[in-house]
Amino acid sequence: MHGYTNDKEAYLTRLRRIEGQVRGLQRMVDEDVYCIDVLTQVSAATRALQSVALGLLEDHLAHCVAEAVEKGGPEAEEKVKEASAAIARLVRS
Amino acid sequence: MHGYTNDKEAYLTRLRRIEGQVRGLQRMVDEDVYCIDVLTQVSAATRALQSVALGLLEDHLAHCVAEAVEKGGPEAEEKVKEASAAIARLVRS
Amino acid sequence: MHGYTNDKEAYLTRLRRIEGQVRGLQRMVDEDVYCIDVLTQVSAATRALQSVALGLLEDHLAHCVAEAVEKGGPEAEEKVKEASAAIARLVRS
Amino acid sequence: MHGYTNDKEAYLTRLRRIEGQVRGLQRMVDEDVYCIDVLTQVSAATRALQSVALGLLEDHLAHCVAEAVEKGGPEAEEKVKEASAAIARLVRS
Repeated sequence: MHGYTNDKEAYLTRLRRIEGQVRGLQRMVDEDVYCIDVLTQVSAATRALQSVALGLLEDHLAHCVAEAVEKGGPEAEEKVKEASAAIARLVRS
Repeated sequence: MHGYTNDKEAYLTRLRRIEGQVRGLQRMVDEDVYCIDVLTQVSAATRALQSVALGLLEDHLAHCVAEAVEKGGPEAEEKVKEASAAIARLVRS
Repeated sequence: MHGYTNDKEAYLTRLRRIEGQVRGLQRMVDEDVYCIDVLTQVSAATRALQSVALGLLEDHLAHCVAEAVEKGGPEAEEKVKEASAAIARLVRS
Repeated sequence: MHGYTNDKEAYLTRLRRIEGQVRGLQRMVDEDVYCIDVLTQVSAATRALQSVALGLLEDHLAHCVAEAVEKGGPEAEEKVKEASAAIARLVRS
């Protein structure tokens, strides 16, 4: 059981749609579509991925981190550090 | 003929690898992998997509925009505006 | 008392340094420094600001959000939602 | 003469406003304003800086890079590479 378990199907649907966007990008490159139009689609796929990440992160804070905090002890602090490192990777990617 | 035409095969290879990363994400979610590990992979896929975008943009500047500038006229200015808008979408995604 | 209170002086020092970077940018523009060198400094100031944000966010999760979660009740959920919205603003800025 | 020279005053005004935002952040931290409100202001300052960067970049492409391309020769290629590296720094910051 993780933060996203209850919304698993919704996440899978979103990831399948992103997979379709990336396959669409291959088709565009293969058919020599104009660079700027390819770039617009890359931006759309990037935003969709980041939106999945923000959802996973919120679920993670609401479940995994919250549970560790409720239990207390050193694991709580560790979970906050770990989540913060994941947020930093997201902000910088 | 667009900026990326000469590197078409390399871009297709990179996009197929990103498609594989997104399918890997689906597997991770489906198998209830720990949230933070899923997030690390989402960041990796996002960075890979942005790296494709930066490559396409450089090729676009070096070919399509450069050609328009060499020809001169209002189209040159238009191409710079269009590329700048694409850069803004990238920076904000 | 907020998450960052214990590190207040350190944050003020970092923000003063960023203020100095922004004043340095004005000097560069005023003295007609080469665009790319100005841009490099803008990127450095942006990264410094985001690094302050990531620090504030980690402190906020470790203190304000953790306290709300320990108390339980609807405020805990609200704090997680609020922090997630702040993370989304950061990722998209 | 650089890309931004004609808009120098406008850029200085925007940078002075950002300096004011960063000073405002120091006041907020000093007065123990709630973390999330500080973060909202950090995001606003970050966006303002990135917006300055996007403007400088567009001016740079329209003037410095365009001039190098018109002259032709190896410097044209170099300018495109240099601009692309600056775009990559922006996207990743």
